[in-house]
Amino acid sequence: MKILILGAAGMVGRKLAERLAKDARIGGIPISHAVLHDIVAPVAPAGAPFGSECHASDFSLPGAAEKLISSRPDVIFHLAAIVSGEAEADFEKGYRINLDGTRALFDAIRRIGDGYCPRVVFTSSIAVFGAPFPQAIGDEFFTTPLTSYGTQKAIGELLLADYTRRGFFDGIGIRLPTICVRPGLPNKAASGFFSNICREPLAGKEAVLPVSEDVMHWHASPRAAVGFLIHAASIDGAKVGPRRNLTMPGLACTVGQQIEALRKVGGEKVVARIKRERDPVIEKIVAGWPRNFDAKRSVALGFRAEATFEDILKVHIDDELGGKIV
Amino acid sequence: MKILILGAAGMVGRKLAERLAKDARIGGIPISHAVLHDIVAPVAPAGAPFGSECHASDFSLPGAAEKLISSRPDVIFHLAAIVSGEAEADFEKGYRINLDGTRALFDAIRRIGDGYCPRVVFTSSIAVFGAPFPQAIGDEFFTTPLTSYGTQKAIGELLLADYTRRGFFDGIGIRLPTICVRPGLPNKAASGFFSNICREPLAGKEAVLPVSEDVMHWHASPRAAVGFLIHAASIDGAKVGPRRNLTMPGLACTVGQQIEALRKVGGEKVVARIKRERDPVIEKIVAGWPRNFDAKRSVALGFRAEATFEDILKVHIDDELGGKIV
Repeated sequence: MKILILGAAGMVGRKLAERLAKDARIGGIPISHAVLHDIVAPVAPAGAPFGSECHASDFSLPGAAEKLISSRPDVIFHLAAIVSGEAEADFEKGYRINLDGTRALFDAIRRIGDGYCPRVVFTSSIAVFGAPFPQAIGDEFFTTPLTSYGTQKAIGELLLADYTRRGFFDGIGIRLPTICVRPGLPNKAASGFFSNICREPLAGKEAVLPVSEDVMHWHASPRAAVGFLIHAASIDGAKVGPRRNLTMPGLACTVGQQIEALRKVGGEKVVARIKRERDPVIEKIVAGWPRNFDAKRSVALGFRAEATFEDILKVHIDDELGGKIV
Repeated sequence: MKILILGAAGMVGRKLAERLAKDARIGGIPISHAVLHDIVAPVAPAGAPFGSECHASDFSLPGAAEKLISSRPDVIFHLAAIVSGEAEADFEKGYRINLDGTRALFDAIRRIGDGYCPRVVFTSSIAVFGAPFPQAIGDEFFTTPLTSYGTQKAIGELLLADYTRRGFFDGIGIRLPTICVRPGLPNKAASGFFSNICREPLAGKEAVLPVSEDVMHWHASPRAAVGFLIHAASIDGAKVGPRRNLTMPGLACTVGQQIEALRKVGGEKVVARIKRERDPVIEKIVAGWPRNFDAKRSVALGFRAEATFEDILKVHIDDELGGKIV
């Protein structure tokens, strides 16, 4: 089985490549070759029992997508995107990459037209939804995004379903929860604090909580996200049916519940490193975000996320901190 | 007020132009000039108290949309589309006109960028929905189209909402019911029979009913459709809010109820002109279509459709038959 990962230099893309290097197979079928792609050159995962090629290009440019699929990968993971904040700040860039780039990839596959029909796993986002929301967003709730990024993802979902229905490829769209705990440095994304208030205190550093403790949000760990991608790569399309875009399972919890879990896992000294500084700008942005889902379909299809925020913290401590808390 | 109608040579576009020529105003504001556009030259409505220009072009070609909006119309009615059957038969043409053409129009408006912010009325369709459905489709039901046409309309809706949110224009998307009774010759659209079994018998001719009488569908008259467009042109955008795409009101009725109304309006001799010849291909297509809606929002916003199928038949008899039944 040959695979292609677009967006392989991103956090989830890197973890996916590393996990596949370790697993060496998807759905029981050995991986023979991997093409890793991003706008900057990705790093081939260490110790992979299969050959890897790394490419850097703008996949929205003419001919770029054709080149990436010239080896006819059996599974294409499409994680490449301009993130929410940048797509909002730079309208044309967001549409060029997130919409035109995605369509260029889908059309490049379609144009091969000799029966080539890869599984395409497309990472969508809960940003396809826009407030006001019901208590828990069900699988049949409409997509009324309130950002250009969410709009572009919702359009990608529609194209994915239509191209799949037409038989051009076999697509599965997965709407990822907010990934928590994000490793790396604190970033300025409005959602950054959900991770910051866990990662920094566990590493002995202070972090700022800019919202009230009763803010609820929808989380899954990076490890769970990689699990979603791999499960989506091998799931039986017939079981999914024509509704190809799935809200992934996750964990709805409040910031207060996050902090309680952090106290159980790390103790009072860790929790004491959280500084409360309300930020009305961030509070307003967060108020428009989905809080909770009832993701029945994806659970029935075998996708699995963490059951408690303690589980999410333990994944972070295992995968990023070598099991140790400062 | 200057207006532009794209798709002005189509049935609804023609009726809209004729009605505006008679009304001479929209929302109380006099119309000063109209640009009528289609792929074939539209006909300027007779007796209009304002000047009209007629243009024929492919609005998806570079520069075409810019030309159409060069007079800075205050209201743009975007009715231009490749219809469902053709968009399904010719994948590339459907996407080129229905998606790229719509986006070219939206981007042409955006690029003017000097505060120009016209009302854009976009005709969408109940084809944005795909079976299975609830008993009545509510305003928050998700769009999972089962045709490329429905996909392209759903994408147009998303773009409309995002471009409106960004302030590039002030858009309202309206999902039209099946228009019944369609004037003109019987056509081969799978939905044609809903109109054929009314129009032909009322004109003294036979018509074929290819499905069972318990098939339910969602209807509005051409006059109601024109009313939706005009109401959408002048409605207060603030009242609509960020969810810019509205399922229009309509009438859910079964074929049996259509025939009963026809009997009341035209008598037994008219109803006797319907020949029953079941067509499994059409039956299968129709089974995937929406049957009934609960269009609360559009009703609350003042959109109005017919209350009974007799009303729909009377509109046809008044507007197309000069009040006379054969």
